[in-house]
Amino acid sequence: MQALRWHGRGELRLEEVPEPAAPEPGQAVVEVAYCGICGTDLHEYRHGPNLIRTSPHPLTGLAPPITLGHEFSGRVVALGSPVPGVEEGTRVAVDPCLRCGTCRWCRHGEYHICAKGGSVGLASPGAFARLVTVPVEGLVPVPDGVSDELAALAEPLAVGLHAVRRAAVRPGDHALLLGAGPIGIAVLMALKLAGAAGIYVSEPAPARAKRAAELGATEVFDPAHTDVRREVFLRTGRVGPDVVIEATGRPELAALAVTTVRRGGRAVLAGISGEHVSVPLTQIVPFERTVLGSLGYNFDIPRVLDLIATARFDPTPLLTGVYPLSRGPEAFAELESGSHLKILLAPEER
Amino acid sequence: MQALRWHGRGELRLEEVPEPAAPEPGQAVVEVAYCGICGTDLHEYRHGPNLIRTSPHPLTGLAPPITLGHEFSGRVVALGSPVPGVEEGTRVAVDPCLRCGTCRWCRHGEYHICAKGGSVGLASPGAFARLVTVPVEGLVPVPDGVSDELAALAEPLAVGLHAVRRAAVRPGDHALLLGAGPIGIAVLMALKLAGAAGIYVSEPAPARAKRAAELGATEVFDPAHTDVRREVFLRTGRVGPDVVIEATGRPELAALAVTTVRRGGRAVLAGISGEHVSVPLTQIVPFERTVLGSLGYNFDIPRVLDLIATARFDPTPLLTGVYPLSRGPEAFAELESGSHLKILLAPEER
Ligand SMILES: [Zn+2]
Ligand SMILES: [Zn+2]
Ligand SMILES: [Zn+2]
Ligand SMILES: [Zn+2]
Repeated sequence: MQALRWHGRGELRLEEVPEPAAPEPGQAVVEVAYCGICGTDLHEYRHGPNLIRTSPHPLTGLAPPITLGHEFSGRVVALGSPVPGVEEGTRVAVDPCLRCGTCRWCRHGEYHICAKGGSVGLASPGAFARLVTVPVEGLVPVPDGVSDELAALAEPLAVGLHAVRRAAVRPGDHALLLGAGPIGIAVLMALKLAGAAGIYVSEPAPARAKRAAELGATEVFDPAHTDVRREVFLRTGRVGPDVVIEATGRPELAALAVTTVRRGGRAVLAGISGEHVSVPLTQIVPFERTVLGSLGYNFDIPRVLDLIATARFDPTPLLTGVYPLSRGPEAFAELESGSHLKILLAPEER
Repeated sequence: MQALRWHGRGELRLEEVPEPAAPEPGQAVVEVAYCGICGTDLHEYRHGPNLIRTSPHPLTGLAPPITLGHEFSGRVVALGSPVPGVEEGTRVAVDPCLRCGTCRWCRHGEYHICAKGGSVGLASPGAFARLVTVPVEGLVPVPDGVSDELAALAEPLAVGLHAVRRAAVRPGDHALLLGAGPIGIAVLMALKLAGAAGIYVSEPAPARAKRAAELGATEVFDPAHTDVRREVFLRTGRVGPDVVIEATGRPELAALAVTTVRRGGRAVLAGISGEHVSVPLTQIVPFERTVLGSLGYNFDIPRVLDLIATARFDPTPLLTGVYPLSRGPEAFAELESGSHLKILLAPEER
């Protein structure tokens, strides 16, 4: 079958690979309907290896080349173990987290911070191919009425939902979002859903700022020309936002999140980079601020699918392009140009 | 009356000052029984002004010289407003927080992070004198059977209790405490009370380490000769502590607290300094750690008094010296020598 594989930085090849073997116990094989291109994929392509390990992955033994793709929907074609509510032919979205199953965190249901964790499409062959092997724990049946296209968007939306759940946003809260890229937009949609009274957004790129405004931001600020901290302070009765969510991974914005949230408020850091965040202790201790890391999702993909099925969540505006898998490299270049939010690839082979 | 007043760095003078005026509405005058010397007082004396403002304080208009002392017990001698359960002669401990009463935080009961807050003994004349004026909200009746000496220890104990409450410690948790000074010891006592299964302590000073062991630490490490992170990791089944509490204000220990707590755990920063804490984003986001500032206390002094009255909390080991107020400067020097935990000053005049 055709697969879009990462060979090294700047090297993405569409090539012929063997189909997956019959699933082992605990595994399933899914025929992919759609798979989204993630900022992570783009980052691995341009600047990696970042999350990809060049030596065999401790959990899977896999080393590059590796088929990318972890945001996908499809149909179960083979089950290595029985799963209640799932059979061959069931339409599914997939939680792509790989887990050891035995560490303290896996045993507590916190599989997303497994001590040895990885992801399908980064630590095992991914869904930029017709067939993909996944752990059965990751299979999430798609409710009737939710299309395969929208089901493939559940994964990035779950990242935003998870960050808002980490922030413990309550209806009536004022929130500031730093960054309106794909994750930021997912956060924005979840903030709206959570009943935030004010959703302020800081985003320098005009196209992203415009989209944030269309999707329900109370006000969008250009940080290049505005003192965002000051403006949000004034708009919240000189209090500051109850919650700030950082969705870019830039360390200076992580520091801004901590120093901008109100006394006693919660700053959620959902963006990641290798750099240090540096904040005066006087900005944390005497104001009793809380800083929370947020990673991926933890049982949030089924929540997103339910929210889409009940029309509480409409991810349609996120979807800005669909390409056949064979045009994958072109789609990567298109996404890099910056005008898209989410592009899905669809394998043509059936 | 005699008062111990701060005139500037290194300048502490025992001198005659006028007695307080009759209390305004909302104020009370307390005749001091005992008042503890705090690390903050010592710090203002040696390295200040730190919390003391040299220009008039925005809340009180006070500028130095200023009578120190904010950890005290005594008897109400005059009330400017009626207070349920309190009359002239009532024995009280005092929550010394000054507050504006109108800001968002005061209105929400979070008076300890009032936008304009200060403290008796730093922003208004303190309790190193026979008489002290306090806000009526700060009066806490002392239960029968709790001595004036122990009641004067409620304030520093409340700082430890508050930090442990911020950490949301649950029975059976493993905790690491960084620093076993007076606040650290109060944290240790509160961790014990909260039912922590393991209480690991990092403390380089032998006398403090010994006292922590006597007061119930599971194990005390000397960070100069031990990799504390590693040892606690091994003693918690290669998981790490559920909670780390930093009680020194040293920025490198604040960073250690964040990077040592287990994935998904809570690091409480209770020590303060003007320096920056610097942590890689990769230590916060992918491990979903939570960092919480903790300042002073919020309705915790009555809790401590109840705990002492019911014998759940025994602060006796904290009390290592009692001096008459007239020997205050000597007591400051004695405390600086490092062998004491808490010294109380008692005004001789009645
Ligand atoms: Zn992704
Ligand atoms: Zn695991
Ligand atoms: Zn104090
Ligand atoms: Zn206030």
